[in-house]
Amino acid sequence: MSDAIFTHAYDNGLVLAAQRMPWLRSAAFTLLVPGGSVHESADRCGLASLLSEMLDRGAGPRDSRQLVIDLDNLGVDRSGFVSAAHTGLGGAAPAENLAEALRIHADILRRPHLDETQIEPSRASVLHELRGIEDEPAQKTMLALRRRHYAEPWGRPSQGERDALLAANLDDIRALFRRRYRPDGTILGVAGKFDFPALRDLVGELFDDWPIGEPESIDEQPPTNGYQHLPYDSQQTHIGIAYQGIPYRHPDYFQAWGATGVLSGGMSARLFTEVRERRGLCYSVHASYHTLRDRAAVFCHAGTTADRAQQTLDVTLAELRRLAEGVRDDELARLKARMKSGLIMQQESSSARSSAIARDWYHLGRIRPVAELQSLVDGLTPASVNAYLAESPPTRFTVVTLGPEPLEVPRGVS
Amino acid sequence: MSDAIFTHAYDNGLVLAAQRMPWLRSAAFTLLVPGGSVHESADRCGLASLLSEMLDRGAGPRDSRQLVIDLDNLGVDRSGFVSAAHTGLGGAAPAENLAEALRIHADILRRPHLDETQIEPSRASVLHELRGIEDEPAQKTMLALRRRHYAEPWGRPSQGERDALLAANLDDIRALFRRRYRPDGTILGVAGKFDFPALRDLVGELFDDWPIGEPESIDEQPPTNGYQHLPYDSQQTHIGIAYQGIPYRHPDYFQAWGATGVLSGGMSARLFTEVRERRGLCYSVHASYHTLRDRAAVFCHAGTTADRAQQTLDVTLAELRRLAEGVRDDELARLKARMKSGLIMQQESSSARSSAIARDWYHLGRIRPVAELQSLVDGLTPASVNAYLAESPPTRFTVVTLGPEPLEVPRGVS
Repeated sequence: MSDAIFTHAYDNGLVLAAQRMPWLRSAAFTLLVPGGSVHESADRCGLASLLSEMLDRGAGPRDSRQLVIDLDNLGVDRSGFVSAAHTGLGGAAPAENLAEALRIHADILRRPHLDETQIEPSRASVLHELRGIEDEPAQKTMLALRRRHYAEPWGRPSQGERDALLAANLDDIRALFRRRYRPDGTILGVAGKFDFPALRDLVGELFDDWPIGEPESIDEQPPTNGYQHLPYDSQQTHIGIAYQGIPYRHPDYFQAWGATGVLSGGMSARLFTEVRERRGLCYSVHASYHTLRDRAAVFCHAGTTADRAQQTLDVTLAELRRLAEGVRDDELARLKARMKSGLIMQQESSSARSSAIARDWYHLGRIRPVAELQSLVDGLTPASVNAYLAESPPTRFTVVTLGPEPLEVPRGVS
Repeated sequence: MSDAIFTHAYDNGLVLAAQRMPWLRSAAFTLLVPGGSVHESADRCGLASLLSEMLDRGAGPRDSRQLVIDLDNLGVDRSGFVSAAHTGLGGAAPAENLAEALRIHADILRRPHLDETQIEPSRASVLHELRGIEDEPAQKTMLALRRRHYAEPWGRPSQGERDALLAANLDDIRALFRRRYRPDGTILGVAGKFDFPALRDLVGELFDDWPIGEPESIDEQPPTNGYQHLPYDSQQTHIGIAYQGIPYRHPDYFQAWGATGVLSGGMSARLFTEVRERRGLCYSVHASYHTLRDRAAVFCHAGTTADRAQQTLDVTLAELRRLAEGVRDDELARLKARMKSGLIMQQESSSARSSAIARDWYHLGRIRPVAELQSLVDGLTPASVNAYLAESPPTRFTVVTLGPEPLEVPRGVS
């Protein structure tokens, strides 16, 4: 499949990474722009999201309404997000509409109006998202955990903070746009049906006169870690536990990822079986692997009733510690079967592939073909995973709980 | 594409409906069993969900743990739901594992253990889902709206009611299983890579000795309609509005569906533009078309602050009424572009197709090829949609609000 993979780096730093899937009738694209929340100033947490909300509201020759009309006319099914590192914009459309969708997105990225009249509706929309999280105790717990576990600014919530969002004005928005919407660091992933030479020329026409940005550094703080309790008037308690992982580009990444998959992934994984099925302790429990470019973590969540919260925390921590004793062959075999299935599905979806190859470029500086992913997964053995676990056992946990009472957290956490 | 479509009806009523997508490496299946919430007794609302939760916890020769281990080993990405008419079970897997996944599902449907030891964890899980909805005011509003708009039992929430779920015992669960898990009315949709003669023989082997069930009728009550306010201590108000539609199998279905698409679908649709973008009244507003076999409705939701709730209700109702004046050519053209794109995506996913063809069989008694769907969408004109709207304008609204104060609802609603 690797002959279907193409990349092109333009002189100003913009990278086009593409995979042809000529049996499809669709094409999907993912634009990663280096304007994520780590690039906000600390007193403007949420500014990247506010800017992202403004982008659609008029760009190039189109006002806000014409822009959405034209994208709807192309049948573009859009997606967007703000992460720590990036603002992402993407879409999937019938293959013949890819070029026009990219033309409109060049206006969105390079020539948004960022118009005074659009700021209040944009702010209302971002504040509404934020209120939605306030109503979601599980999400609230996990955002606090992430903030505590990663050093600032990497743990910052992309949804922002209410006071900072209320304080942000058009100058702030325009300043972030000027600083961070730039070709150097921007990655365009495309997957589906397309002709690469034509695509490369089109992207050049749209983006190669985009000027490079100024160098910038990120001011990193040491993480807080330890234990934090968030009082919440409820009969339920949410528990978040984090420990350190290794990033995607680390050579041992798949060993670390495989260990987490044994813990949580599929219905036969350890946490689900031990904590939920056997002991009936809690309603939901899972762990997921999260990677940034230079750091990574495993984040676990358990939701339970207040009276079972202490036992749930104890049992979950015990399961995490038990991982250091190693994984079994049958556990790893199941994980590999699930992963193989997941890779097949990813390979059948232009949207999934366009976002995977853009992320590959960010983390690795190249596209990892599905066949290589498959062989990395195939190469996992209990011995290789256990060697990693022996060297890097889950330890030094960061814990956040949300509920009526704080819990007792073992020494070594707080 | 229609030469890729196969159906087979077994003597006991079970139907296999399949579409070959030989360029894929995956295969997906959707089982619709006639055991949805309309088949519960009124004092056991939620029993179908409780039964569905029990199915996985041991079936045939496998105990609860072995069952999930074996499905994980096959790389089956599972899905499930309970709707008014059906309990649905589905999965997608590498094509070579389809047969074994279906074998296990034959045990799940025909030989579940429904074991006493599994009832409390199952109940806890269903009650947890229910509590999740209690915390979601938007969903709570829409469930109350649906209940009020459709006649009982069609408006019943599949998540159930707390008291009914607490009262349900193993006898209730087993009785519902015996009555409603049956071949007559069960539809198996399959899409992806498979060999049809082998699939037909396998399904016959697994299911053709499954005995037909007893005839049953459903006791239908007249709907309540009118206006209902749910007091809720919040600064926000949620508004739900419903009006009658026509079901999928009605010859004018696409006209009615198209009118709703002009109202809400894509960012340039009327509700989003008028209510949210132009007037800044509310955070979210949308309408969606919902079809059962013999009835259908359009359900609208708007979420806003309490002080803007009355105006939001008035403006939204005015937009719904304005639909009777007809849709414009450009609005319909955008909708058709979006629909074309959606059909292309559906055609590229084995999961999406397996569920679409199972639903087609339920509603139409045949599979509608994507090409036919495309030509039905292509055939929509402002004249055809407007003829439908002139005859069946949005009227006789059912309204539910949730917030600190009831709203004033115009005559003709309550």
